[in-house]
Amino acid sequence: MNRHVISVLVENSSGVLSRISGLFSRRAYNIDSLSVGTTEDHRFSRMTITVCGDEQIFEQIKKQLNKLIEVIKITELKSESSVCRELMMIRVNSIESRSNIMEIANIFRASIIDVASDSLVLELTGDRNKIDAFQNMLEPFGIKEVVRTGIAGLERGLK
Amino acid sequence: MNRHVISVLVENSSGVLSRISGLFSRRAYNIDSLSVGTTEDHRFSRMTITVCGDEQIFEQIKKQLNKLIEVIKITELKSESSVCRELMMIRVNSIESRSNIMEIANIFRASIIDVASDSLVLELTGDRNKIDAFQNMLEPFGIKEVVRTGIAGLERGLK
Repeated sequence: MNRHVISVLVENSSGVLSRISGLFSRRAYNIDSLSVGTTEDHRFSRMTITVCGDEQIFEQIKKQLNKLIEVIKITELKSESSVCRELMMIRVNSIESRSNIMEIANIFRASIIDVASDSLVLELTGDRNKIDAFQNMLEPFGIKEVVRTGIAGLERGLK
Repeated sequence: MNRHVISVLVENSSGVLSRISGLFSRRAYNIDSLSVGTTEDHRFSRMTITVCGDEQIFEQIKKQLNKLIEVIKITELKSESSVCRELMMIRVNSIESRSNIMEIANIFRASIIDVASDSLVLELTGDRNKIDAFQNMLEPFGIKEVVRTGIAGLERGLK
């Protein structure tokens, strides 16, 4: 059970996302996170998919991804040769502890993006470990809502 | 043709992503960006979906989303009452212009996350307009690769 991160360059079409996610779900292969956004070329989107599961099934899925006509290129992002980042926004209960929360936010270089009388929304980017650690640190205050974009990544320039 | 951002809280299951994206693709309704990540509760994921298209079809799709058993809650994120952010990583040609690129990065508060002899990778978070503006500013240097996570968002605390 290894974690894999793949970057998939695809043609922009309304069906490509359901075809790709269907390849995974037909084998009950769980997608940990997925993000899709526009690229340098408006004809294409770039998806970053994080999965965790059986090695052999993963190889089969990669082969089938390659056969889809909308798929232009698949790159596996290895941790030693790529940069991967995720964005998290988290709403924390701040009734009695606003200054403590702000201290933790400073340590992680998170930004405060919304303030209400009883809660704060913080924004943080980083790799998965940093994001998880931040979320754990805020747990005792009471987490009301979390949204994470899922990992996005690029290969490093020097190999 | 309005742009809509919806936040969908779903049960973690291998099929939910393909079912949801299938609802859009069956009507040839293009998804601009989609991000899925873990939440405060490991049983659920939160998706943020950005779409642009016909109003009536969008209403139909929302109704059908609500009927899926894995869908717990749908929230439409209106720009005036929510915070939406996106993360971009961009590889720019830097052969003759590294200091110019770093100047632009400073103005936008982007961080440099990888350096090679002929390119830089920059990371930036912000709303769609800021990210688009940054990408446009870097265009003249030669953009080699762009990855964007797609929008993620939360409602503001004060309404």
